[in-house]
Amino acid sequence: MTEFENNDERTELKQLGEFGLIDLLTKNIKLKNKSSIKGVGDDSAVIHHANKQTLVTKDLLVEGVHFDMTYMPLKHLGYKAAVVNISDILAMNGTPTQLIVGIAVSNRFSGEALEEIYEGIKLACEHYHVDLVGGDTVSSVSGLILSITAIGEADKADIIYRDGAKNGDLIFVSGNLGAAYMGLLVLEREKKAFEVDPNMQPDLDGNDYILERQLKPEARTDVLELLKKAGVKPTAMIDISDGLASEILHICQQSDLGCVLYEDKIPIDITTDGVAKEFQIDPTTCALNGGEDYELLFTINQSDYEKLKSIDEISVVGHMTEKSAGYHLVSRSGTQVPLIAQGWDAFLNKEKRNRQ
Amino acid sequence: MTEFENNDERTELKQLGEFGLIDLLTKNIKLKNKSSIKGVGDDSAVIHHANKQTLVTKDLLVEGVHFDMTYMPLKHLGYKAAVVNISDILAMNGTPTQLIVGIAVSNRFSGEALEEIYEGIKLACEHYHVDLVGGDTVSSVSGLILSITAIGEADKADIIYRDGAKNGDLIFVSGNLGAAYMGLLVLEREKKAFEVDPNMQPDLDGNDYILERQLKPEARTDVLELLKKAGVKPTAMIDISDGLASEILHICQQSDLGCVLYEDKIPIDITTDGVAKEFQIDPTTCALNGGEDYELLFTINQSDYEKLKSIDEISVVGHMTEKSAGYHLVSRSGTQVPLIAQGWDAFLNKEKRNRQ
Repeated sequence: MTEFENNDERTELKQLGEFGLIDLLTKNIKLKNKSSIKGVGDDSAVIHHANKQTLVTKDLLVEGVHFDMTYMPLKHLGYKAAVVNISDILAMNGTPTQLIVGIAVSNRFSGEALEEIYEGIKLACEHYHVDLVGGDTVSSVSGLILSITAIGEADKADIIYRDGAKNGDLIFVSGNLGAAYMGLLVLEREKKAFEVDPNMQPDLDGNDYILERQLKPEARTDVLELLKKAGVKPTAMIDISDGLASEILHICQQSDLGCVLYEDKIPIDITTDGVAKEFQIDPTTCALNGGEDYELLFTINQSDYEKLKSIDEISVVGHMTEKSAGYHLVSRSGTQVPLIAQGWDAFLNKEKRNRQ
Repeated sequence: MTEFENNDERTELKQLGEFGLIDLLTKNIKLKNKSSIKGVGDDSAVIHHANKQTLVTKDLLVEGVHFDMTYMPLKHLGYKAAVVNISDILAMNGTPTQLIVGIAVSNRFSGEALEEIYEGIKLACEHYHVDLVGGDTVSSVSGLILSITAIGEADKADIIYRDGAKNGDLIFVSGNLGAAYMGLLVLEREKKAFEVDPNMQPDLDGNDYILERQLKPEARTDVLELLKKAGVKPTAMIDISDGLASEILHICQQSDLGCVLYEDKIPIDITTDGVAKEFQIDPTTCALNGGEDYELLFTINQSDYEKLKSIDEISVVGHMTEKSAGYHLVSRSGTQVPLIAQGWDAFLNKEKRNRQ
């Protein structure tokens, strides 16, 4: 259960030095996308999205805030850090093309540990057909911080913003929600048990699905392809990193509209549901506020509904309303509950986790 | 001498929350560049460099490694973090166009402190005609980390890489070298004196120039303009962030050549020279290994020399040789000393500072 479990060797970062480390991490990187003109090894990466617009996004992942090294294997961490950024490019209806990796790391980590993180990042690059084109690796006083910049491309006409939803549009989500948060709670429970009795073995049986959603999330390229195939362009889109409630409120705010969600329509996996009840948490709360699902949330014109209704990977969860109607969830019993953006607040998440 | 000296008010980050903080920091940002299609407020920024190539670079600045809050005012820190990234775009002969700001910050900092950092970043954006188009602000367990991504554009034919130098090319640097490092040593000396006697006033008299080079460096847009005006396109270029020795070795390595530098040609400011001697350090060592100068280092074909020789802002410091001739500095006494990339190694700099 430590970050070094797969590493017999340990090369100190000081031995490698900054330049040695960059060589170690970036050797054998081959650029595959036509738009990647120059990768690692100059002052800047050079990219050419001929006749397309360029999308750029950045997310930071901080040890002790966004991840815990006790249960997050380094390779998974690298993979996840790449995926959460790739997901932001998809949420614009773009094609991810390049990544730039910033890592701040204390000397508690070895060269091999950094190689493991890079292995995960490179695996994500391969899976999502993205080139790793640059980075900056520096030392930190304590802990590990990953700052990844994802770059993508899209035809101007294809880009989907948050502000395009119209009154009456249907609200869809991909996949199911709340699973990643339940995975986190299971991992934290086992960590606490391990701290009390270091000889115990973690009890993760039957929870593979939610653990994978937490430790190795995927970005929904498949959903964008299904929409394209169906000939439907959403009017607004966002990825669900902070929970459904906070994300739909972003679309409402930016589109100057209200919304109604229906509790019984929110897709929740059976494992998520079971574990939530085990933890005495309302599964709907997990879907609304859990975060880290990296599913897509989008709105479509009602006239497009017929084209999408047979696609299993997506579900209608509500519709957009006039702004004056506010933001509501209709519960299973039929009562209207105001939607509040509790979200996955980086400044509060420790407390949130403990509170629930 | 604290990060809060200009702030009477203190708003806790928790009070603001992540979304409140983003609103606070990014309100009133206006996009000025035509290439900035969408800024803060969606999953990604959208950029359109019509008929140009896109340059992307990222540098991390870590508290306790790259800066010390004792003497680095927050506004200067924001400005410097922007400039070091803008400098990387210039080093490709590009025009900086956008910035994306990542900040990881502990709750030791207030909302007002973050506003100060953003003020500095915005000032740099204004000065260099760059748009702030996105960011991610998260909490850290301890300390402050700035991760800035700079984006620029250039015509394909204008981009200057590190690998284009030819045997016999002249090596130029802009401005003068070693000043930022001397500024750092003065600040660290005064910090130590202050720790011994908290009532003492820092003795910074006469050192304005080197302090400004350390605390508020500028990127050399003016030098690129002078070169353009003179009708000269360098064959290779890099910015000097790690010291002259390490940077020229990058050009040598990537261009598969050797080099000779002449000690008596290396431009060193009179204040740098005086303070180096005060610290009993060889001023040439500061220029070679001090780092953080953000001057430009470039090579030109000898036939272009006439066009540049009257430009005060740049100096010839040597020439490129065949690779087999190695990497040398010819000292004032005429002896050849091997050039070693000691550089501004992020994993060693604490020791380096103490050693010198």
